Amino acid sequence: MEQAIEDIRNTLGNEEMVSTDPEDLHRHGYSEWSTVNPDRLPVAVVYPRSTNDVSVIVRTCNEYSVPVIAYSGGTSLEGNFSAPHGGISIDFAFMDQIIKFNKDDMDIVVQPSVGWQDLNAKLAEMESGLFFPVDPGPTAKIGGMIGTNCSGTNAVRYGTMKDWIINLTVVLADGRIIKTKRRPRKSSAGYNLNGLFIGSEGTLGLVTEATLKLAAIPDEFSVAVVTFPSVRDAAAAAASVMQAAIPVACLELMDELQMRVINLSGSTAPRQWRELPTLFFKFSGTASSVADNIDRVRAITAKNNGGDFEFAKDAAEQKLLWSARKESLWSMLALRKENEDVWSTDVAVPFSRLADIIEITKKDLESLGLFATILGHVGDGNFHASIMYNKKDAAEYAKVEKCVKDMVKRALEMEGTCTGEHGVGWGKKSSLLLEVGPETLGVMKNIKQSLDPKWIMNPSKIMDVPGLEDEEKKLTRQDVVGSPAGPANMSTKK
Amino acid sequence: MEQAIEDIRNTLGNEEMVSTDPEDLHRHGYSEWSTVNPDRLPVAVVYPRSTNDVSVIVRTCNEYSVPVIAYSGGTSLEGNFSAPHGGISIDFAFMDQIIKFNKDDMDIVVQPSVGWQDLNAKLAEMESGLFFPVDPGPTAKIGGMIGTNCSGTNAVRYGTMKDWIINLTVVLADGRIIKTKRRPRKSSAGYNLNGLFIGSEGTLGLVTEATLKLAAIPDEFSVAVVTFPSVRDAAAAAASVMQAAIPVACLELMDELQMRVINLSGSTAPRQWRELPTLFFKFSGTASSVADNIDRVRAITAKNNGGDFEFAKDAAEQKLLWSARKESLWSMLALRKENEDVWSTDVAVPFSRLADIIEITKKDLESLGLFATILGHVGDGNFHASIMYNKKDAAEYAKVEKCVKDMVKRALEMEGTCTGEHGVGWGKKSSLLLEVGPETLGVMKNIKQSLDPKWIMNPSKIMDVPGLEDEEKKLTRQDVVGSPAGPANMSTKK
Repeated sequence: MEQAIEDIRNTLGNEEMVSTDPEDLHRHGYSEWSTVNPDRLPVAVVYPRSTNDVSVIVRTCNEYSVPVIAYSGGTSLEGNFSAPHGGISIDFAFMDQIIKFNKDDMDIVVQPSVGWQDLNAKLAEMESGLFFPVDPGPTAKIGGMIGTNCSGTNAVRYGTMKDWIINLTVVLADGRIIKTKRRPRKSSAGYNLNGLFIGSEGTLGLVTEATLKLAAIPDEFSVAVVTFPSVRDAAAAAASVMQAAIPVACLELMDELQMRVINLSGSTAPRQWRELPTLFFKFSGTASSVADNIDRVRAITAKNNGGDFEFAKDAAEQKLLWSARKESLWSMLALRKENEDVWSTDVAVPFSRLADIIEITKKDLESLGLFATILGHVGDGNFHASIMYNKKDAAEYAKVEKCVKDMVKRALEMEGTCTGEHGVGWGKKSSLLLEVGPETLGVMKNIKQSLDPKWIMNPSKIMDVPGLEDEEKKLTRQDVVGSPAGPANMSTKK
Repeated sequence: MEQAIEDIRNTLGNEEMVSTDPEDLHRHGYSEWSTVNPDRLPVAVVYPRSTNDVSVIVRTCNEYSVPVIAYSGGTSLEGNFSAPHGGISIDFAFMDQIIKFNKDDMDIVVQPSVGWQDLNAKLAEMESGLFFPVDPGPTAKIGGMIGTNCSGTNAVRYGTMKDWIINLTVVLADGRIIKTKRRPRKSSAGYNLNGLFIGSEGTLGLVTEATLKLAAIPDEFSVAVVTFPSVRDAAAAAASVMQAAIPVACLELMDELQMRVINLSGSTAPRQWRELPTLFFKFSGTASSVADNIDRVRAITAKNNGGDFEFAKDAAEQKLLWSARKESLWSMLALRKENEDVWSTDVAVPFSRLADIIEITKKDLESLGLFATILGHVGDGNFHASIMYNKKDAAEYAKVEKCVKDMVKRALEMEGTCTGEHGVGWGKKSSLLLEVGPETLGVMKNIKQSLDPKWIMNPSKIMDVPGLEDEEKKLTRQDVVGSPAGPANMSTKK
């Protein structure tokens, strides 16, 4: 690895591009947001300025069989950018430019470290009338968003990352640079390489440029909030709205505990909320269609025992009504006591099963004495559990871990998936195997092997490296606060 | 190949499943719709009844290195199901069942030979309120639609085939059976194998079952028709509609010649149409949103020199106004004289370039003395040219071929694609190479090699078989009427 770093330094001819600063290494190999962190860290962080720089770095790493891990926003939750085998983290921080805006074609060419919120701010500044609709965590960046095929509250209307990519420039494991497509909005020409690289978490190649589709900003918006006596009523109402083809822009569920957390944190003060399962709707379109959709949603939710129906009559009310949804995660984080952290996980099921899995999961959490809130992208059958735990308490950590595994198992029994939007990373590999089985995972491995025969691209993410399965079991979790003596190391001691 | 057929017959234990009837072989290896047909035919057609049957067939073929080609609707246009190396055609005719309808989840599990129109008829019969929105040629079936990642007039609103698949059951080259996913509507779990198999034209595996998403049928529909003095005005109007985020259900362009063809054929008699470039809109949604959208489209088209704006006030008028679009291909076919055929091809470009490419293509066709009509899925930047030619006239055939190649080159120069929805098949391999370049095609070949090391799955489609490039050049076109002495054999004589 030392020799690889030396070679990269020499070839790039810019000392500042390569860092071995311990703090830098820690930041690139460890995440306090992540449910898991392996013990090791990258041995260097490289800051390329161009696709060619990336190609040089990867070619050198391939020569020396050194792992290469992409880093952009650093907001992923399943150890997706961790470095279980060491290696080199490529931070795209300096590749954060808009390359070309094709307004008439409603697309834009960007580098991987453009943040989706910054992108939308720029599009607004230019009065383009366009926006990029995929909305994961606020500081996520395009590179990582492609890596995990992320989504967010807009997915029910606009789909996920894979629906918004026209082409990608990708550096392959041997340093070759390819472009997946030219710039048509629609194509049937050859294999859908966009679809393959999106969601592959940097295990097949590194995206250095992407052309994104943009959507036109609708004329009018509104927000509505409705409470329900039970999660089951709320889920049934959501399903009815979907089945009635009402084109809602967002459809989010927050359970009664999540609503209580908002009140407790005071994050939307002075507004207080009823502590009941609550659906949050966003509407967009023309003024009349928005008014229409509000009426229809009001009627449907009323039939499903919805109460306290409120909708926003102006922008200020929109902001107020949506604020509870917006502040949900921060409110939870604000309630953490010393040594406490929040384990955030997600699964998705066919939407007829959503109420079942949420009910069982809530009972399970309660019986384990864990405090957790549920937040659902309910139009997609996708929901998150945010579980508070004391990271110094090994027994509690184990409880949370088991609870999450059981939640995944239940989702799979209901024909769902172990992750609707966070990705597999380092944390959910065994869940993925359980989900698709060894034959299907074998196909993924065949593809991986064909494009990265030395397994240098983000190794041990999504799938184990063949032959290293046993070694991987020994790559224990680092203490969740970063100290090697912490309780999370219990897994080694077993 | 004989031994493989014998083995398959014995293993399946059902004589009727295997046919070597010459007419059957011809029907499965030759298509009068197709722009190209290689000389050879399959040596047998097998009619499996189950995924297991398919697995047995493919495993045997793999053992003997015999090509395997999937067949469902037989409507593809680029020789996608032809048999340039002989081999076995697997006709899914007896795998045409709906396996399971999950109404509450808005999805349905089907076998590959379910036709999309039949499926929609069944969904209507059941009063499900749901439909499958991908609408290619009327007799296309789900298996082939997955193969080419097809689309149709609804794509501007609903996307293409890849947007409507939840999971696939696939038989791999070695006979292994895998399922890509369980049944979540959204997932970030591992590589997007759906996206990879969709559009791979049976070169990576055979789809034996698919779970399709369904959409809720909107409440109200309408249709509007507007004429323009030029294709450029029509394209500009279409782009403005897209940029205004008006959620049209369809947005189709027909040029003045296509309108004349409708009149000439009498297919919509007594209705006659102005022979001008014309945009056809479909609207759907609530009554008020449809009315709203019609008003907005009327205003936008008026600004772009649109005239004769007509919209449907009831279902009968909808049918009448849409009839010209519906009858476009049949009207063209009806005008064929003896020995004449229609070469149907498609490309797509970023939509700001659509007017340019259509204008140049029309001039080119005119200067070559070819009669052709243009029909565009203009909201996707995708359009079709249907070119009339005498199939007994080698010089004319050559002219059409050159014209299509030039059209592809122009599309690529405008950052477009050689095919927006028909696929590459046997006919557009050199175009694909030109489009993506040897490195990107190399990645596709790596993936192909990893899943089908003997290259038995629909070989020589999308890409040449490595080592057989020269032999492929010799696999001449069969006469387009099926006689080996026909003029289309000219390519061998050069």
